[in-house]
Amino acid sequence: MMTLIARQRTDPEETRCRILEVAENFFRSIGYQKTSVADIASELGMSPANIYRFFPSKGAINECICGRIVKEVAEIAFAIARSSDPAPEKLTRLLTAIHEHNKATLIKEKRAHEMVAVAMQENWSTIKAHLEQMTTIIEGVIREGVAAGDFDVDDPAEAARSVKAAFVPFLHPLMIEHCLRFHDDTEERLREQLRFILRGLGKRS
Amino acid sequence: MMTLIARQRTDPEETRCRILEVAENFFRSIGYQKTSVADIASELGMSPANIYRFFPSKGAINECICGRIVKEVAEIAFAIARSSDPAPEKLTRLLTAIHEHNKATLIKEKRAHEMVAVAMQENWSTIKAHLEQMTTIIEGVIREGVAAGDFDVDDPAEAARSVKAAFVPFLHPLMIEHCLRFHDDTEERLREQLRFILRGLGKRS
Repeated sequence: MMTLIARQRTDPEETRCRILEVAENFFRSIGYQKTSVADIASELGMSPANIYRFFPSKGAINECICGRIVKEVAEIAFAIARSSDPAPEKLTRLLTAIHEHNKATLIKEKRAHEMVAVAMQENWSTIKAHLEQMTTIIEGVIREGVAAGDFDVDDPAEAARSVKAAFVPFLHPLMIEHCLRFHDDTEERLREQLRFILRGLGKRS
Repeated sequence: MMTLIARQRTDPEETRCRILEVAENFFRSIGYQKTSVADIASELGMSPANIYRFFPSKGAINECICGRIVKEVAEIAFAIARSSDPAPEKLTRLLTAIHEHNKATLIKEKRAHEMVAVAMQENWSTIKAHLEQMTTIIEGVIREGVAAGDFDVDDPAEAARSVKAAFVPFLHPLMIEHCLRFHDDTEERLREQLRFILRGLGKRS
């Protein structure tokens, strides 16, 4: 009877969201490894058993957080891909926006590295699906550019893979950090790389 | 008197080399963190104090090993840059050779990652100097290509930086591993990326 009343009082979806929010704060502040399900439960005034009703493990919580992070990135890319700019400008804006977003969310906080590393190990299918989605979005922009005569490319899917690979130092969380450390002039390097990529797509400057 | 005789019996340079060799084997097999100077000394039948006569710390040993590894890479690049091939072929061979070398020496052995990570943290100046040297070698090849009319590039130094950045997924030890994991077709991806880079340098196919 008690359980029934408690269940009616809080929306399960809301509880799930609160668990994810609190867990993400812990992962970003004290780190994924050092956070226990008991810490998350205690912060929410819940029992660990209650958390396990929503997520079977800490890994399952991290997978959800990881899924949310990559969904955010994909939405940024989609929004720019849907805009009406010419393809070269769109591609430049899209790559720059994701670089800025990853820098802000995955680099500033030192602990976020650990989340990325864990996701790479444990949620590879989420990351892989995300990378494929990003390549597809880029391919769409390249196709538009070819249709408009801005790009000269035989195989837009191949070109999209090459563009993504050529931009890895500015996209991959671990590489952005090395890049920021190696160069005082990351902004200028970013512009250089975007110019080089547009040339690789056959855009004459 | 004893010391004098002992010193005459072994060449200090030879001892240094043996220390580095044994240390590198330990770092590659049990890992950098788990290896102690005592382990290295014991394997050589020496006292730790004797090791410290040659290297002030384990970090200093790792710095030497790291320096040797990057020197090997630079020598491969130099040898190809000095050959008489046309610049586009030379650049393709050079980048492929370094990819293959890094894959063979830094990926196969799982512990080598830790060496790379430690080097990134503790011997950044060695790595930085190495990356600058590699960019200079690439710049030389690009200049030759421009002179021969194979490439169409305004700023060879900028182009060299862009080429290196565009090839990071195939050069950087941590990225090669991700790449091998993500793609079953790394060889085809490598060829695609090389084609894209040559197009970025203004080579018409």
